[in-house]
Amino acid sequence: MSEPKKLGGASASPLKVAVAGLGTVGAGVLKVLRDNAAAIAARAGRPIVVTAVSARNRGKDRGVSLDGLAWYDDPVEMARDADADVVVELIGGANGPAKASVLAAINAGRGVVTANKALLAHHATELSSAAEAAGVPLAFEAAVAGGIPIVKGLREGLAANRIDRVVGILNGTCNYILTTMRESGRDFGDVLADAQALGYAEADPSFDIDGVDAAHKLSLLTSLAFGTKVDFANVHVEGIRHITALDIGYADELGFRIKLLGIARRTEGGIEQRVHPCMVPKASAIGAVEGVFNAVIVEGDAVGQVVFCGRGAGEGPTASAVVADLVDIASGRAGAPAFGVPAALQAELKPAPMADHFGSYYVRLSVVDKPGVFAAIASALGKEDVSMESVLQHGRHPDGPVAVVLTIHETTEGAFMRALDRISHVDGVLDQPRAIRIETV
Amino acid sequence: MSEPKKLGGASASPLKVAVAGLGTVGAGVLKVLRDNAAAIAARAGRPIVVTAVSARNRGKDRGVSLDGLAWYDDPVEMARDADADVVVELIGGANGPAKASVLAAINAGRGVVTANKALLAHHATELSSAAEAAGVPLAFEAAVAGGIPIVKGLREGLAANRIDRVVGILNGTCNYILTTMRESGRDFGDVLADAQALGYAEADPSFDIDGVDAAHKLSLLTSLAFGTKVDFANVHVEGIRHITALDIGYADELGFRIKLLGIARRTEGGIEQRVHPCMVPKASAIGAVEGVFNAVIVEGDAVGQVVFCGRGAGEGPTASAVVADLVDIASGRAGAPAFGVPAALQAELKPAPMADHFGSYYVRLSVVDKPGVFAAIASALGKEDVSMESVLQHGRHPDGPVAVVLTIHETTEGAFMRALDRISHVDGVLDQPRAIRIETV
Repeated sequence: MSEPKKLGGASASPLKVAVAGLGTVGAGVLKVLRDNAAAIAARAGRPIVVTAVSARNRGKDRGVSLDGLAWYDDPVEMARDADADVVVELIGGANGPAKASVLAAINAGRGVVTANKALLAHHATELSSAAEAAGVPLAFEAAVAGGIPIVKGLREGLAANRIDRVVGILNGTCNYILTTMRESGRDFGDVLADAQALGYAEADPSFDIDGVDAAHKLSLLTSLAFGTKVDFANVHVEGIRHITALDIGYADELGFRIKLLGIARRTEGGIEQRVHPCMVPKASAIGAVEGVFNAVIVEGDAVGQVVFCGRGAGEGPTASAVVADLVDIASGRAGAPAFGVPAALQAELKPAPMADHFGSYYVRLSVVDKPGVFAAIASALGKEDVSMESVLQHGRHPDGPVAVVLTIHETTEGAFMRALDRISHVDGVLDQPRAIRIETV
Repeated sequence: MSEPKKLGGASASPLKVAVAGLGTVGAGVLKVLRDNAAAIAARAGRPIVVTAVSARNRGKDRGVSLDGLAWYDDPVEMARDADADVVVELIGGANGPAKASVLAAINAGRGVVTANKALLAHHATELSSAAEAAGVPLAFEAAVAGGIPIVKGLREGLAANRIDRVVGILNGTCNYILTTMRESGRDFGDVLADAQALGYAEADPSFDIDGVDAAHKLSLLTSLAFGTKVDFANVHVEGIRHITALDIGYADELGFRIKLLGIARRTEGGIEQRVHPCMVPKASAIGAVEGVFNAVIVEGDAVGQVVFCGRGAGEGPTASAVVADLVDIASGRAGAPAFGVPAALQAELKPAPMADHFGSYYVRLSVVDKPGVFAAIASALGKEDVSMESVLQHGRHPDGPVAVVLTIHETTEGAFMRALDRISHVDGVLDQPRAIRIETV
């Protein structure tokens, strides 16, 4: 185990880096370290040099030379044996070689920089405890919101604050799909297929569109914001598969945009962690974030609202975050705990039940256009003490199906869900009602 | 002179802080440190306690208790003698007791946290050299954009990048005045008087409205972005006194907002530093920032555009930034140079001449509505190879004065200014033409 101070403090000796995983981001890290070497060395107080790499295919053209770098077929072997102060883990996946190489690096007394949100969402406490015990840095700026320095912003820049809420657009694929659906009027499946063809969505898109990726990231932000252990299991997760062009059109009419948000909020009953589609005002900072961009709003008691916005993925932005972590390590800034508070001092997260969530809702119904139906809907709401804020219906279709859109005043999710169940049983309500939460931002 | 490591590194011993200046921000720092003491200690690795204060009026009610704190009438004496690891300088002013107490603190081996942009704009090299020689931190997050962690963002979060441009709304007073002018249609003097009555503008507002405050802040961002010495003398500064309700109305019609921007840009001929009113697209990230909010866009070669937005002034936001710096010092993160690169290694800034600035322009003319005038204006532009993008004229007023608004294609500022001079001499052009630069963001 090396001494922590070998990793920190300005000195003429270069910081030596081994990179595990040479996909888009790995190649990007090598390029940034090469192209901006002089400026990076000036900011880091010493050069940062890659000494070793590991990937599956040695011969692949990555647009960057691997000359002079030690090659390892096995990233775990590299993490254990390479001539390196820090291992950059860009393999991906919550377990397997990613986890094994991070643990091997820590056990060998090397610092770790990772972009792997799945790994940390599942193993943050184990890995940060191990890093703290070994006295080596574990840094993960690239794991959340790509090039936006939100991990540093929360952990350090806003460290004076009691954080009350974090709200983020954390998945660029979903934001691209939702933006394109709105702009084109096309439906989900159609736009997803295009996004896959363009490389904005994976062949198996479920991690993105079902909200899992955003939930991984949210669980890390929650820990940073509230000083609690990462608790991915208690994130409420819904994706965007059920969002229709119809809902997006109504949202627009009501002055909203639909965004997949990750939200962590301090409430009296505990901490809410939820990822789901939300309606947010068009003109809000987060409503205006379109396409592949990410954004994170942080609300602190002293600072008020701070908004961070930028590219959430891709070679350059993710490499920017990885290399920023390396500069922190090289310059001796990265000695503090990975999540701001030492793992041993982090409280367990007390999850707030979703049934206690207090908020407004959008509801779209398909109903038979005949007398009495609307009165029955209103009565169903009234029985749960839930009240309507607005009603939208275009045109008439006597005795035929017609879409009715309601917005519901703030209430608890439990009461709302019971009211929704009542509505779905009203005679003349044709399909299952569609509901989307409205988030005040 | 104390050892640097006495200030850094987690330990159980509290970080002791002396606060010079107990105005709104000073009182805010005491309140934040008191209200969030437990969370701050957890993040800092040790408690942060105020041990001494200095201000002009000991008896004033500041809404926070000074019990148990050593009182000093003289901040310089406090900086020299107090039982403190760090001195927080909140006195203000480029010289006088602010500078004297910062130097006294550094000479006594204490770290310094300051919110004083005027001081650093004028003396950054001297002060950061002194701090680096003494091995003590000098931190100034609160000097730029209040609670937004932009100093940290540029110095650390985006350290991997070659920065190409920084664009900021850096003065909340100006942004409030411009926003209110647009919303109310009222003219500058009128809105300024209201802002003064509301406490959003000083009795002597010239530092804000003439762009000096924004220029102070810009000069610090420039140094962080480009690794150059702070060079306030070479900031081109124009304020907002000449902006009229008429121009704001035309801007709106053309799809723009008028903002006082601070812009630092890398060009082939050197580095531009300029503070002046700009037209920016309404729908852009910076065009949508209204009222007292600040925003900073950073453009890096790897990361692309990153936007930071939040409250740029006031008790809570500024205290948030001051205390973040204290947490950095307490946790041992603040050992690196104040401006990212050691003062001795910073290059002199090579200023790009304003005449070489390449951009688009808005021009408002008052002309006699008669045949031939417009042809003469077009000819004046043509003689300088400057071309029009659009022309706006509402209504007719035969042989009387009528407003004509032009937008000008990208050209050099030198050519544009010569063309403007030619236009002002055209027969039938009544007043001095009004020009506002258009910034692409």
